[in-house]
Amino acid sequence: MPNEAKNFITSDELLAHWQGHRKLTRRLIEAYPEDKLFTHSIGGMRTFGALALEIVTMGAPMVRGAVNGDWTTSNSREARPKAEILKMWDEATEQINDLWAQLPAGRFDETIKAFGLYEGKTSDLIMYVIDNEIHHRGQGYVYLRSLGIEPPPFFDR
Amino acid sequence: MPNEAKNFITSDELLAHWQGHRKLTRRLIEAYPEDKLFTHSIGGMRTFGALALEIVTMGAPMVRGAVNGDWTTSNSREARPKAEILKMWDEATEQINDLWAQLPAGRFDETIKAFGLYEGKTSDLIMYVIDNEIHHRGQGYVYLRSLGIEPPPFFDR
Repeated sequence: MPNEAKNFITSDELLAHWQGHRKLTRRLIEAYPEDKLFTHSIGGMRTFGALALEIVTMGAPMVRGAVNGDWTTSNSREARPKAEILKMWDEATEQINDLWAQLPAGRFDETIKAFGLYEGKTSDLIMYVIDNEIHHRGQGYVYLRSLGIEPPPFFDR
Repeated sequence: MPNEAKNFITSDELLAHWQGHRKLTRRLIEAYPEDKLFTHSIGGMRTFGALALEIVTMGAPMVRGAVNGDWTTSNSREARPKAEILKMWDEATEQINDLWAQLPAGRFDETIKAFGLYEGKTSDLIMYVIDNEIHHRGQGYVYLRSLGIEPPPFFDR
């Protein structure tokens, strides 16, 4: 029996999936040498520190905007201590959990304009944030390997 | 109103999302220089050719196994022409669409043992295949940049 319009994953499962990915990204930030975080780069790409800041300033702000239309976030990618990024990370973890519970029923199917710029279905925009994290974290894996450091295993969440 | 057990994404939406990612990965394979596909590497990692073969031999075989328990796939990562990989890719695109329509209702919530090795909920295993593709494609972006080639934009599916 075909399954058009069948549910693939519930809201709670998606949150757990995302937080699993976020745990792995946090582990990668922890494993990254402090002195390379905002200096090491390959092929003219952004540093992993800048990518980590992009990730952490997209996640909770995306869910907050989806909840209440407040699209405030930070665009600063300035170098800062690893401990400060990890603190931002852990605060975002709690914020995402709290905000997720406040998402009104039906919101995932509604079209919103994220950060006043990106129009799309709420579920697509949230998926984009998760995919963007996986994408840039994968790049962090290459950076770490190029520094001779073994990254945490991808399958371990 | 909280939304526990609320649907996040439907089966059809997830398939479209995946095929969008697969289009982008195909574009990356196309952009990759033929003579570097199975030779270029950073930090002792696998070549992008080997990663592309892993991706293409996981996708359709995962859905086929979820449909009928046939876990046949190819583990060969031997060098081959780019055109051959793209042919495998396009065949897999059709297979995934065909097999997706055959997934029995309720299968996403059932526990299966993928490739006789990886036990999990069908939806989690399918998400893993997609995440693995995004992860390794992100690494392909770094490889391409390190070769001085601009990859296709991440947001374009």
